Amino acid sequence: MTAFSPLVCELLEAFRRLPGIGPRGAQRLALHLLQRDRDGGRQLATCLQRTMEEVGHCRYCRNLSEQPRCPLCAESGRDDRLLCVVEQPADLAAIEQSGSYRGYYFVLFGRLSPIDAIGPDELGCGQLRELLQERGVREVILATSATVEGEATVSFLSEYLRNEQLIISRIAQGVPIGGELDFVDSGTLGHAINGRRAVSAPELS
Amino acid sequence: MTAFSPLVCELLEAFRRLPGIGPRGAQRLALHLLQRDRDGGRQLATCLQRTMEEVGHCRYCRNLSEQPRCPLCAESGRDDRLLCVVEQPADLAAIEQSGSYRGYYFVLFGRLSPIDAIGPDELGCGQLRELLQERGVREVILATSATVEGEATVSFLSEYLRNEQLIISRIAQGVPIGGELDFVDSGTLGHAINGRRAVSAPELS
Repeated sequence: MTAFSPLVCELLEAFRRLPGIGPRGAQRLALHLLQRDRDGGRQLATCLQRTMEEVGHCRYCRNLSEQPRCPLCAESGRDDRLLCVVEQPADLAAIEQSGSYRGYYFVLFGRLSPIDAIGPDELGCGQLRELLQERGVREVILATSATVEGEATVSFLSEYLRNEQLIISRIAQGVPIGGELDFVDSGTLGHAINGRRAVSAPELS
Repeated sequence: MTAFSPLVCELLEAFRRLPGIGPRGAQRLALHLLQRDRDGGRQLATCLQRTMEEVGHCRYCRNLSEQPRCPLCAESGRDDRLLCVVEQPADLAAIEQSGSYRGYYFVLFGRLSPIDAIGPDELGCGQLRELLQERGVREVILATSATVEGEATVSFLSEYLRNEQLIISRIAQGVPIGGELDFVDSGTLGHAINGRRAVSAPELS
């Protein structure tokens, strides 16, 4: 690092602190901005400063937002009766991008994990219950990850919301689209077989 | 991108403008900073702001530096008689890291390319000549890249510095250390054979 001046070294260190960026990546980013795109660097700086200070959580879905009601919760024309519960903002983004869901969301920011002291309060369960009543939701879709903690979160939430007169559903688990069967792990295949759907039956044909 | 609030989208865009960072990478960086490391984000913002404003060029070697004389040029105990000419700051860093050179440097910030209007002035050739005289340099090592433009830059500089009473050398081209011969391209192999060195000869043994 002695090849660079102290201030440039500081920038390299700041970039290296980001996930997935190693020494070479940090050097490439810093030199690119310094040599070719100082405006881009200034813009990134201003934007980072503002987001780090101003972005909080939506009062409704808990997603990251600088306004108390995020654009998605403010969007009219969505289906009020559906609420999809996800672990992280990135999961919400992935579902939105699929284009196959038009209800509202709730972000847990984690999954039940007593060992990490993540319980119902950390996941905002009280807020979730209020939201369900306020919106008049009919079905809660639990879209937590297909991990042990994700499943534990599903069990806990179904128990927690038992008296709310709701349909509680879980997203389907099975083989991914385009997946060759011999590349799919056996746990997933097991789920796919147990969760099979009839495509033809004596009563259907 | 509608899954995020306007300010968060702006941050995603600013990250995507960086080289080698796609939509998923930008999302990972932004969400990481917002959810787990706001201090890191603020630090990166401050550091970017300062470097974009303050970092200029060393008056001697032309490398990026916030001081008029960069730490490397200010370092005593280096060999005054050697000057290594490189194309980019990253090349300088790579040579420093090899630990096999203890002279000073000069950064061209490019290579001769008349088609892009990069000529002797853009490469700071006048400044290079002054530096050579000021430091009393005896040998100039041309460490430009092994490309057509890199070689053209070598030819031009050797001609340009012809009357300076200097040894002008070029870094060796050949097979890389640990390189299996059948993976080395034929151009490199040709250079390696033409630039062969005797390890034993009748006079040596």
